[in-house]
Amino acid sequence: MKMIVEIITTGTELLLGQIINTNAPYLAQKLNEIGFSVLYQTTVGDNRERMRNVMKTALSRADIVITSGGLGPTQGDITKEVTALVLDRPLFLHEPSVSRIQNYFAKRHMTMPDNNLRQAMMPKGAIVVDNERGTAPGVITEADNKIIINLPGPPHELNWMFENRIQAYLQERFGSQGVIISKVLRTYGIGESSLEEKIKDQILEQNNPTIALLAREGEIHIRLTAKAGNTEEANRLIGEVESKMMPAIAPYLFGVNDETLENAVGQILQSKKLTIALAESCTGGLATSRLTDVPGSSAYLMGSIVSYSNEIKNKFLDVSEQILASQGAVSAETATAMACGVRKRLGTHIGVGITGIAGPGGATADKPVGLVFIAVDGSRGPRYFQYNFTGQRKEIKNRTAKAALFHIREYLLSL
Amino acid sequence: MKMIVEIITTGTELLLGQIINTNAPYLAQKLNEIGFSVLYQTTVGDNRERMRNVMKTALSRADIVITSGGLGPTQGDITKEVTALVLDRPLFLHEPSVSRIQNYFAKRHMTMPDNNLRQAMMPKGAIVVDNERGTAPGVITEADNKIIINLPGPPHELNWMFENRIQAYLQERFGSQGVIISKVLRTYGIGESSLEEKIKDQILEQNNPTIALLAREGEIHIRLTAKAGNTEEANRLIGEVESKMMPAIAPYLFGVNDETLENAVGQILQSKKLTIALAESCTGGLATSRLTDVPGSSAYLMGSIVSYSNEIKNKFLDVSEQILASQGAVSAETATAMACGVRKRLGTHIGVGITGIAGPGGATADKPVGLVFIAVDGSRGPRYFQYNFTGQRKEIKNRTAKAALFHIREYLLSL
Repeated sequence: MKMIVEIITTGTELLLGQIINTNAPYLAQKLNEIGFSVLYQTTVGDNRERMRNVMKTALSRADIVITSGGLGPTQGDITKEVTALVLDRPLFLHEPSVSRIQNYFAKRHMTMPDNNLRQAMMPKGAIVVDNERGTAPGVITEADNKIIINLPGPPHELNWMFENRIQAYLQERFGSQGVIISKVLRTYGIGESSLEEKIKDQILEQNNPTIALLAREGEIHIRLTAKAGNTEEANRLIGEVESKMMPAIAPYLFGVNDETLENAVGQILQSKKLTIALAESCTGGLATSRLTDVPGSSAYLMGSIVSYSNEIKNKFLDVSEQILASQGAVSAETATAMACGVRKRLGTHIGVGITGIAGPGGATADKPVGLVFIAVDGSRGPRYFQYNFTGQRKEIKNRTAKAALFHIREYLLSL
Repeated sequence: MKMIVEIITTGTELLLGQIINTNAPYLAQKLNEIGFSVLYQTTVGDNRERMRNVMKTALSRADIVITSGGLGPTQGDITKEVTALVLDRPLFLHEPSVSRIQNYFAKRHMTMPDNNLRQAMMPKGAIVVDNERGTAPGVITEADNKIIINLPGPPHELNWMFENRIQAYLQERFGSQGVIISKVLRTYGIGESSLEEKIKDQILEQNNPTIALLAREGEIHIRLTAKAGNTEEANRLIGEVESKMMPAIAPYLFGVNDETLENAVGQILQSKKLTIALAESCTGGLATSRLTDVPGSSAYLMGSIVSYSNEIKNKFLDVSEQILASQGAVSAETATAMACGVRKRLGTHIGVGITGIAGPGGATADKPVGLVFIAVDGSRGPRYFQYNFTGQRKEIKNRTAKAALFHIREYLLSL
């Protein structure tokens, strides 16, 4: 039997519209993947009476109610209290949670404020769910064929708890609900409508899996979603459609699911035993930071020079004063000299130079905001690429870093 | 009298978590600004029975129900039908809407598909709201002291209709509802419960403005929300409480509303006419990238060295081989030498050194993942700080970058 779930997200900041609700779509996706039906989502503030009514309504129309938020140590954190009230269970002090929270503070050489004890109060008979990402344990309370699950509000805590604890609990408790599996094919370097054109046969024929195109920060993702009795069957259905579209998308495909461009670059560097260094101007270290998001990147990333000033471009990267004077700091020549300079100075196989105008200031008549040059140097000699990005400063930085990673990958594949 | 609003967003893609709900926070913000209280937000799919129940529940607890979505031409677009059902009004073909939709297609040299006529069906007695951004008119249906307002789902249509039609209708219909104004005080360097402890008098006495504490990526935000007849009065109420808590929070307060730590650092550097350079190891350029997110940062940020390898620490930052061998790359001595080295080499007023173990690899018996040293050097000589962060690689990088920005600010304020 298909279980019906209602998600209740709590918090005044959600009600006021001050933050975007990412917990509800996250939970909805995850629950659907394991075959549970989310039919309602409700948001309510930190108000006892209203939260109580919302929970009662939810229990009247769903089998499982999952809440997020309101498990913190403050007086405004009332979700467990209201859960206990609605299910008619007294609250008690859960000793293992007390020690766990005390340990959390002790580890950080801090003393636990008394109000953190609120986080150890639990409805009688509840299953306490540990939280490796914060101080608030989660709670599962079962009663009369209904279940209320309280999860913490901060997304990284909620996500951890769902994936590592709640999902297994639900699957064990209710058996298989069938599966919905998605696979995301990540592409870069092609627009959404051009990509759609390339796979239009598969889109027109789609049934199971379904096909969705999603634009995500300069990347276009193809999401294939299959429903089946089990994971193997779902994966087989996805694999069939994937191999049909592969010839058309292969030049743009750099990873699947959570694989990022920086992962892809790191894998190639590692497998080819090559090292890399970057010289960044307009991105201010962002491209290097992305590369160092990958565990183990110290094996191939030696270092980088963020050369915001011309003096540093000259002194640390050997960009000649003549190039800087005649072509300017934002030019193909400077980007190329930066790539070659950082490669030589840091003694790496690959050198990268990035220079541009992130704005809003700094533009001239012939060099507008968004003008960017990216150069890659290696054993096949330097290559450079010019872009004219649009957007705000941070968007231009992000797009430039992504384009740089793409061209590094391309260069590496050509070796 | 304060009107209570419930927002109902409809659509299967929202229920499945495939798209983020931006309509609910948009409407919540706009409604709060003009003094209406949004107390509930509900999301439901394109299902007649469930949408009917959700609307009935909403009418039982709110004065005004605003829906988004389900006004399109397809069989799945049922919001108006359900509205008519719940309010017991028959639907009729609204001739002006028929011509308007026909015109919309004619202008684009397209013929109107028959199913677009569904968009001209209206509940009897409804006020039809024109839509300059699409084909679906909005609908206001008043009945028995309750009002249901149906808005289209696409955000640019919904936003246009709210700002240009609905807001004026609500203000005219209900007179001024006063204003709700929020101010956010951003703090760093203190935990949520310790901060609560420091302002507990104000929290216990709170009434108008209300006080909420929010944990945001290592920062704790204090949100003061005041309701008043006008903006000046609301700001006065906020100012009163703010000045009462100021002595306790001043050491941690770095900005208000959207001001970030990097903004705060940039402002001080600019006003004191100082320059800065960073030497980053475990953060991989992230702290520098944050500083360069601020427009105009090239005025004070000269550049940075990302020194992932020991060789670069030695060659570009003058960290002695002896320190690296005896104390290790992750040590107070190395961080301090990096700060002094980058300051000297790049010729800036302030130098910053960051070294640590971001994990998951790289830990030793006495140096665990999360161990971080941050040093700041300037005219008052070097200072260093040790942290033991928890979390995944990216979290540790983020927390370290934030801590570095905090200590830079602190050092600058001491000059």
